[in-house]
Amino acid sequence: MVAEFESTDSVRSGKPLRYVETAVFPTPMKLRLGGALPSVEVAYETYGTLNEDRSNAVLICHAITGDSHPARHDENDDPGWWEGLVGPGKAVDTDRLFVICSNVLGGCRGTTGPTTINPATGILYGSDFPLVTVEDMVDVQKRLVDLLGVKRLRAVIGGSLGGHQVLCWATRYPEYVETAVVIAASARLTAQAIAFDVVGRNAIQTDPHFHGGQYYGTGEFPHTGLALARMLGHITYLSSEAMTRKFDLDRHAPRDIVTDFEKRFSVGSYLAYQGKQFVGRFDANSYVSVTLAMDNFDLGDTREKRLEAFRAAQCDWLVISFSSDWLFPPSQSRELVSIMTTLGQPVSYCEIETDGGHDSFLLSGDINAFSPLVAAKLDAPVPQPPRKSAEDDRILELIPPGGSVLDLGCGEGDLLARLRERGAPLLCGVEVSTASIAATMQHGVEAIDYDLNVGLPEFDDNRFDYVVLSSTLQAVPNVERLLEDALRVGGRAIVGFTNFAHRTLREMFGLEGRAPKAPGPYSYEWYNTPNRRFPSIRDMLELCEKMGVTVEQARYYDDTHDRIIGEDEDPNLAAESALLVLSRSGD
Amino acid sequence: MVAEFESTDSVRSGKPLRYVETAVFPTPMKLRLGGALPSVEVAYETYGTLNEDRSNAVLICHAITGDSHPARHDENDDPGWWEGLVGPGKAVDTDRLFVICSNVLGGCRGTTGPTTINPATGILYGSDFPLVTVEDMVDVQKRLVDLLGVKRLRAVIGGSLGGHQVLCWATRYPEYVETAVVIAASARLTAQAIAFDVVGRNAIQTDPHFHGGQYYGTGEFPHTGLALARMLGHITYLSSEAMTRKFDLDRHAPRDIVTDFEKRFSVGSYLAYQGKQFVGRFDANSYVSVTLAMDNFDLGDTREKRLEAFRAAQCDWLVISFSSDWLFPPSQSRELVSIMTTLGQPVSYCEIETDGGHDSFLLSGDINAFSPLVAAKLDAPVPQPPRKSAEDDRILELIPPGGSVLDLGCGEGDLLARLRERGAPLLCGVEVSTASIAATMQHGVEAIDYDLNVGLPEFDDNRFDYVVLSSTLQAVPNVERLLEDALRVGGRAIVGFTNFAHRTLREMFGLEGRAPKAPGPYSYEWYNTPNRRFPSIRDMLELCEKMGVTVEQARYYDDTHDRIIGEDEDPNLAAESALLVLSRSGD
Repeated sequence: MVAEFESTDSVRSGKPLRYVETAVFPTPMKLRLGGALPSVEVAYETYGTLNEDRSNAVLICHAITGDSHPARHDENDDPGWWEGLVGPGKAVDTDRLFVICSNVLGGCRGTTGPTTINPATGILYGSDFPLVTVEDMVDVQKRLVDLLGVKRLRAVIGGSLGGHQVLCWATRYPEYVETAVVIAASARLTAQAIAFDVVGRNAIQTDPHFHGGQYYGTGEFPHTGLALARMLGHITYLSSEAMTRKFDLDRHAPRDIVTDFEKRFSVGSYLAYQGKQFVGRFDANSYVSVTLAMDNFDLGDTREKRLEAFRAAQCDWLVISFSSDWLFPPSQSRELVSIMTTLGQPVSYCEIETDGGHDSFLLSGDINAFSPLVAAKLDAPVPQPPRKSAEDDRILELIPPGGSVLDLGCGEGDLLARLRERGAPLLCGVEVSTASIAATMQHGVEAIDYDLNVGLPEFDDNRFDYVVLSSTLQAVPNVERLLEDALRVGGRAIVGFTNFAHRTLREMFGLEGRAPKAPGPYSYEWYNTPNRRFPSIRDMLELCEKMGVTVEQARYYDDTHDRIIGEDEDPNLAAESALLVLSRSGD
Repeated sequence: MVAEFESTDSVRSGKPLRYVETAVFPTPMKLRLGGALPSVEVAYETYGTLNEDRSNAVLICHAITGDSHPARHDENDDPGWWEGLVGPGKAVDTDRLFVICSNVLGGCRGTTGPTTINPATGILYGSDFPLVTVEDMVDVQKRLVDLLGVKRLRAVIGGSLGGHQVLCWATRYPEYVETAVVIAASARLTAQAIAFDVVGRNAIQTDPHFHGGQYYGTGEFPHTGLALARMLGHITYLSSEAMTRKFDLDRHAPRDIVTDFEKRFSVGSYLAYQGKQFVGRFDANSYVSVTLAMDNFDLGDTREKRLEAFRAAQCDWLVISFSSDWLFPPSQSRELVSIMTTLGQPVSYCEIETDGGHDSFLLSGDINAFSPLVAAKLDAPVPQPPRKSAEDDRILELIPPGGSVLDLGCGEGDLLARLRERGAPLLCGVEVSTASIAATMQHGVEAIDYDLNVGLPEFDDNRFDYVVLSSTLQAVPNVERLLEDALRVGGRAIVGFTNFAHRTLREMFGLEGRAPKAPGPYSYEWYNTPNRRFPSIRDMLELCEKMGVTVEQARYYDDTHDRIIGEDEDPNLAAESALLVLSRSGD
């Protein structure tokens, strides 16, 4: 019974960690919101070996109720909370990397927090523990990283509050961070997420056993309030769909667990169980401290402030969100990506399709989905060389070596990979499937999960030399907006498309009176084609004229005979496909 | 300050209602889950006058924390919680209708509940008040309705828990209900919604001042727990977007209200204020009682059970949902509509686009959006006669009088209105905009807000004689599935479409080599057309052949000259549009 009841981050009880080490920093530490700590202790674990040039260290940052133990150290060790991601041969490969993970400041798993003895009074801090922030947590981690002799982290990786720490690392200590992996996080919590935390803290702080936070030594603990906070938090970590799946088959048949809480409904007994498990392993003051740090995390309430906050970063980014995460919705991750893109910072982004909710970053199935992206960022063995195609050959001819390129609809990144081989400085692909994004990243190129239906508002003016739309327009609802945006974001746009007025198609339609089909993207029937646009060369040129767009070059192809069609050969009739180089300037 | 802090259903404090009356039922009442009440008192209010044949009574059912006062009785009266919907000249027009609203069983605003004196002990029931259900609430309302001499209700209307009561009325006392209006409700709560209620009740029941529910007379009240429950509930009534809008401009600037709760974050002070207001007007035992009734409401965990539960209903339905309602998501309303449709029960449905969340059913802006639908159901003055069009004339010729019709893409319902004038027994329109649905309903025809992208899985086999797709297919992603479903749901399908192979279009494409445009739905440019399908008559006939569909009749039109094109005139070249009557049987 208990096994089915287990949730992702409560796998272990509060028992001691076998491989934990403690670093003591005896010098005082000032805190961001005022207050200070006379000294700080940090509980941490490491995996793997720091290499000679100290270039393989990866810092893992944990979420609210996590600890320094993301993975087991050996077969006899307890499983960790990120077992699927961290370990020998895993995406964060402890055979190659030196992995560090420490308990956060304010926590209750070994690092200084409310359950530490306050040297000023000789008793536990309790509610005298000063208000700490994510910045303070990161400052403590920085002391640890320095102590370990690491001057630059190959990567900092974290989900949820761990993701906030990553954002903070990259912006506060930019020279320390090579790659930042931000999972299920945001520049600030939603008002709704804060509201849930407020109710949880109120439940703790109004518990009569809380004693204003000085409950240690009274023999009483605010277990009721802490359990309530945990139950509530737990709901927000799951998606509604997952809860339905989990509890609706036997809704009215609660497990008969020992509890003082309500014993109705299967979901009720689950929550009671979660609450009960939690109070055995977590401290109420710590819960207040760490959730407040999360709620106070704020990289700015306007885009301008956020741009300013991120400006210092020097890392390349990987941002990951989960479709059913309503506590840190994907829109917040896309906002981060937009900021990074605007600042010209290399970023890959993927929204993982799952019903796991916010918890997804801890669920093995979802870890399997996103770990290839992490592996690609961390230079896991690179697979296949790019596949060559005639269309890519032609596009490559049009782009001078050294030109930066945004490829809208980049597929598996083959064109970008070839551009990379030629030494392009800035390359980015746009795709929607996780597999395509992973494949593109495995070529060492950034890829972004992005919906072209909205144009390119997230991309800054003149960010790229070229924007490529190769067999992309046929699927786009708003062609004008996308073209307009492509020419804003890029100096030039290269548009490759099937000419729908090619002789064979005209005959099919004009003589036979049936909807024409063409090879490639147009090889569907009229009633099931995913395509929305069926332009001819003439249509496209007329649109360019209407939009005041300059056609710098036009190349027309007889694909069947692999031949270029000249301007004098009536390309709109003779060409099967076309490539146009467009610009706004006409230079 | 307070005004901005007010939420929708806490407009009034707990002060006495001016026009409330009390009905006393001295006979014992058995409760559904066991237990009984020796007698019941019901607090209720009425508006307007019962007409002579007692046919104009409307019952309004309130939500969890509502009461018998949906609207003011006169200018000096306190505003009610559904002021925008109920009153003279409103959708629930008290000039024409006799409106009844009573406080629910288990409530604390006049009707028998935990704050009533238990005759067996002489003290308040408290936690001895038996577990009541929505069915029991409705049974009590039935006593009241009988007492008032009403044998049939023109309508029963309610949102949230009020919607559950409506569902219960229609299925438990079918002969009493002419029209049922179900707003923001469902056949059962989601597991997530129950989970939130569980946490809220746990907060109340573990409050040391709760005293096992017998706090009356102790001088103590579980105000802390009740306030926590209210805070939590409140979050679930709002959408995340609405909370962002409301609290994110001054996130870190809480109002300085007098409270023992956390005083951080603007959303925190708002919740504290809501909690505090609530404990002044609501009883904790009542909150437990009424939320349990809601959580236990369950019309079945499988579609089969739900079909069984709804089978008895004899009313016509109006179902309304709100796009941002995550407590009672629109998918749950669509599920209800699917059940009703399958059972052949007349139903109109609309999803209102709003960021108001579950609270929308109480928000004046959203009430303005859905009240025309309610008015249309309650026979408000009928507007314009249907507009006539040549296309509708032609379709009418193909449908024998008395044939039942489902019109997919019914626009403002003009064709359906004309069919109705001819006396068709069963008519239903499908549209997506609220305005089109309201317009169709104003013709006295049912209309359903439905996404044709998914086919017609909600519609039962052979439900209609005819399914009409008039200028609809061009916008449909999956033509085959929709056609297949249309022929499953209807005996025949009438498909009207523009012939994309008409001479002028072929010339445009064949000779000029540009994407053709046609009048009507095809009068867009290739780059901005919302259309996805461009079939010719030949294409359509070939698809029918491929699908094994019988073309019973084919009519071809020269629309420009309002002339029928004969089979011998090469319709695929000569006809501008076509109407096909299709069937599976070929009879």
